[in-house]
Amino acid sequence: MKALEDRILKDGVIKPGGILKVDNFLNHQIDPALMYDMAVELKRLFGDREINKILTVESSGIAIAIMTGYVFNCPMVFAKKSKSKNISDDVYSVEVPSFTHGNVNTVVISKEYLHENDKILIVDDFLATGAALIGLRSLAAQAGAEIVGAGIAVEKVFQGGGNKLRAEGMDIKSLAAISEMTDDGKITFA
Amino acid sequence: MKALEDRILKDGVIKPGGILKVDNFLNHQIDPALMYDMAVELKRLFGDREINKILTVESSGIAIAIMTGYVFNCPMVFAKKSKSKNISDDVYSVEVPSFTHGNVNTVVISKEYLHENDKILIVDDFLATGAALIGLRSLAAQAGAEIVGAGIAVEKVFQGGGNKLRAEGMDIKSLAAISEMTDDGKITFA
Repeated sequence: MKALEDRILKDGVIKPGGILKVDNFLNHQIDPALMYDMAVELKRLFGDREINKILTVESSGIAIAIMTGYVFNCPMVFAKKSKSKNISDDVYSVEVPSFTHGNVNTVVISKEYLHENDKILIVDDFLATGAALIGLRSLAAQAGAEIVGAGIAVEKVFQGGGNKLRAEGMDIKSLAAISEMTDDGKITFA
Repeated sequence: MKALEDRILKDGVIKPGGILKVDNFLNHQIDPALMYDMAVELKRLFGDREINKILTVESSGIAIAIMTGYVFNCPMVFAKKSKSKNISDDVYSVEVPSFTHGNVNTVVISKEYLHENDKILIVDDFLATGAALIGLRSLAAQAGAEIVGAGIAVEKVFQGGGNKLRAEGMDIKSLAAISEMTDDGKITFA
């Protein structure tokens, strides 16, 4: 999606350790019109499938996911980072390691909001190692729900998570796929 | 806003300790069309003011805030819960006690995204004790930004935070204002 690639080139900042800082428009300050345009693009990419629910994980996936739910006219559910180690029986739960923060979060979804007959589009702002997608796939599997596909704003292809999950059968489409990033600030799209 | 009041009566569940559970449509599973309609209502209520930024705090305020930014055609910024106690010089920070979780979060905003000339509409899903609004007001004050008003989805009037802040001069408008909630499930709107 050219508008997103252009925005990354204009406002993205590369930080040491393979971090792409896009908090000017994607995950701290957020450009609502861009979120809407990305949701419309996801509708173009996945609109021919039967999808009844958008799934993401807090926090920075929520903005694009709610817009996607709006365009798809279906509910959005976000997995929550659990505050306690004591997981109750009324949630599905999974451990998700964070690439950015170097820790592990337990994320949960209430069993009320994920069902066997759900046909799910996962939406997230970033795909790097794939940890969040693997976690959400596990939550869906616990519920017996079907993952129809995953729509990602920015994929860092060189971190390998996306292609590993594609090889395992997940239909992932990224709106901007970065094949290379150099410490001196050069970004190459796939 | 009648559609929101009706939805609270239909899907809200009262839990012991004055907790109103609305995670069927507002803060776990989220109804995107309702978020959009609430944003349009906030535009009706605040649209005659000069506003250049929507401000909220993660996580459950993000959905309504991004829709509000979309309708107001301006950026949305969300304050982040800090993972570390070591706050860097490039953020504004404040401590916010959580009514629901009984803990205190340090929330931060990058100094890049809050400025002296900003005219801010705060948007959040809930207003109870007012702790989140007080925190966001402090962050805005640190930046020298002006808070034009606050648009809230659900205010629990009986917890007093809203009226205390109104007395201090904050222009708060709630889309559903609950004056009374009983443990056996009766909800009265103001």
